[in-house]
Amino acid sequence: MDSPAPASEYTIGVDLGGTNLRVAAVSPAGEILERIGLDTEVSEGRERVVADLCGAVEDIEQRLPGLRLAGIGIGVPGIINLADGTVRQSPNLPGWSDFPVRDDIERLLQTHVVLENDANAAALGEKWVGAGRDVDSLCMVTLGTGIGGGLILDGRIWHGQEGMAGELGHMTIDPNGALCGCGNLGCIEAYASASAISRMAMAAIRVGRSPELAREAEQLGELTAEIVYIKAKQGDVVALEIFEMVGRSLGVAIANLINIFNLPLYVVGGGVARGWDAFCASLMAEVYKRSLVARSTHPRIVASALGADAGLIGAAHLPRIAQEGNHAASRRI
Amino acid sequence: MDSPAPASEYTIGVDLGGTNLRVAAVSPAGEILERIGLDTEVSEGRERVVADLCGAVEDIEQRLPGLRLAGIGIGVPGIINLADGTVRQSPNLPGWSDFPVRDDIERLLQTHVVLENDANAAALGEKWVGAGRDVDSLCMVTLGTGIGGGLILDGRIWHGQEGMAGELGHMTIDPNGALCGCGNLGCIEAYASASAISRMAMAAIRVGRSPELAREAEQLGELTAEIVYIKAKQGDVVALEIFEMVGRSLGVAIANLINIFNLPLYVVGGGVARGWDAFCASLMAEVYKRSLVARSTHPRIVASALGADAGLIGAAHLPRIAQEGNHAASRRI
Repeated sequence: MDSPAPASEYTIGVDLGGTNLRVAAVSPAGEILERIGLDTEVSEGRERVVADLCGAVEDIEQRLPGLRLAGIGIGVPGIINLADGTVRQSPNLPGWSDFPVRDDIERLLQTHVVLENDANAAALGEKWVGAGRDVDSLCMVTLGTGIGGGLILDGRIWHGQEGMAGELGHMTIDPNGALCGCGNLGCIEAYASASAISRMAMAAIRVGRSPELAREAEQLGELTAEIVYIKAKQGDVVALEIFEMVGRSLGVAIANLINIFNLPLYVVGGGVARGWDAFCASLMAEVYKRSLVARSTHPRIVASALGADAGLIGAAHLPRIAQEGNHAASRRI
Repeated sequence: MDSPAPASEYTIGVDLGGTNLRVAAVSPAGEILERIGLDTEVSEGRERVVADLCGAVEDIEQRLPGLRLAGIGIGVPGIINLADGTVRQSPNLPGWSDFPVRDDIERLLQTHVVLENDANAAALGEKWVGAGRDVDSLCMVTLGTGIGGGLILDGRIWHGQEGMAGELGHMTIDPNGALCGCGNLGCIEAYASASAISRMAMAAIRVGRSPELAREAEQLGELTAEIVYIKAKQGDVVALEIFEMVGRSLGVAIANLINIFNLPLYVVGGGVARGWDAFCASLMAEVYKRSLVARSTHPRIVASALGADAGLIGAAHLPRIAQEGNHAASRRI
């Protein structure tokens, strides 16, 4: 960690999702001081989103008189060009790729701004004040609509050569398995994401395996991962099977990561991690069945400690850690 | 790289396998000056192996009068305790785990000795003067009797928390696939190692699919990966299919590694890599089918440039790079 910042300073973390725009002031100790949640008005254009973001930051500044804003970190779903602070590629923010987000916001708000991939920001948050506060290295798998990942190696975010490292959601875990949105067969995202859970539940309904889930789907007009989780907790056999599949699939992926990295900690985050108790047993069984490194080293495998705030808190830590131009070499935190 | 060593100095690399003991003097530029090959007399006890090793080193020293030996690096198949220079676990060197190999050899030869896992040493060799001389980071998969791996990240060997990182051979690529020696189903080692190639060929013979391979097996009394390769080059359909399976399986594993790391280079080494032309096409096809990061970044995927000498040359580089006690933090090369 860098030398401690004065308690009169705070930073702002932004979680710029395709649907929600979340902004929070975070103390040097990692506590959220103030927060604002807005819709991300992607369809109104990127200038509108940036204006909303800046408005929220100014709003928060006014709520914290006497404290100094020391910088802003923004987590974005997609591939970031760290060197020039642009979003290189983001399915959720179409048309942003030629747009100097970082420089624009720096100019508008007159403060230091850092852009980062949202899953990397979440991993950084867990490292800073979450499940990983006592380790130097961790791997975080983020289970949302899709699946993302973040790697902290020796205290640094591992970006890879072009900033595309940590695409853990597209690890093949079954070469002839379910079709993934990326076109590949058998990605972990096709088994353990929120959309995979919905899809598996709908498939069970279609073949008449689950009248209970069919009733829910008809009543609610949809079948979210959360509903399937609630049904699993109520003992619905199909819902339980689906979460067992989530755990087994994640177990294969995490066993692979353990064999590759031999890290002390693997964190499972994102919305689906709220259902941790429904899949952690099958996850662990699969890890220990498949990884000799796990059997020798017993790494910690845990649900995110910061929950939905991991990305927000991690983003707020970004301006405190120096970012070098080279993707692979951001500084120790 | 460290500051260049004087040309009058050389180091010695040792490849201490379960069958062969190879020792070579290597110049500061990475050229092999002298080499000695012996059998590893494992059954005669570890003292005998150490005595043979020391004898070979002294032999080489006498062949190079006027040059100074600056240290010895030893690549060992198994898990190394870098801190105390012992072999923690090695199937090929049974009974070595309580034996201070490094300190014993240092005392006997009065020179600096460094122990390292053999696959890590091979990756280091490729980084130093092989396929990876122009990159900071690479991943090497070593296809021998089993499959090993080495990771060089930002110029350093990535050891992981307990020195067990890079167990790439036990990445699951098919969750219900072939049984691996480690007890898991569907490890890459069960599809792309020399022993997997033999096993697949024997299975084809048993079901009567390959009279040609059956004839070879009967004539030679065995069916090595090399023989299967020769048959593939002669157009034998079953042998071609086996190497296609090697390539497809490796392709799944390397696609996963690309999605995880986003490195500029992936190197395939070990004895099976001599059959590179028989499996590289199916490997590449699988990688591009499965990895969006590969499709965006086009990493280099190549056969080892140093071949069977990668581990030997890499081992000789070990004494030139400082090794810290912490597994995860050996110094930049």
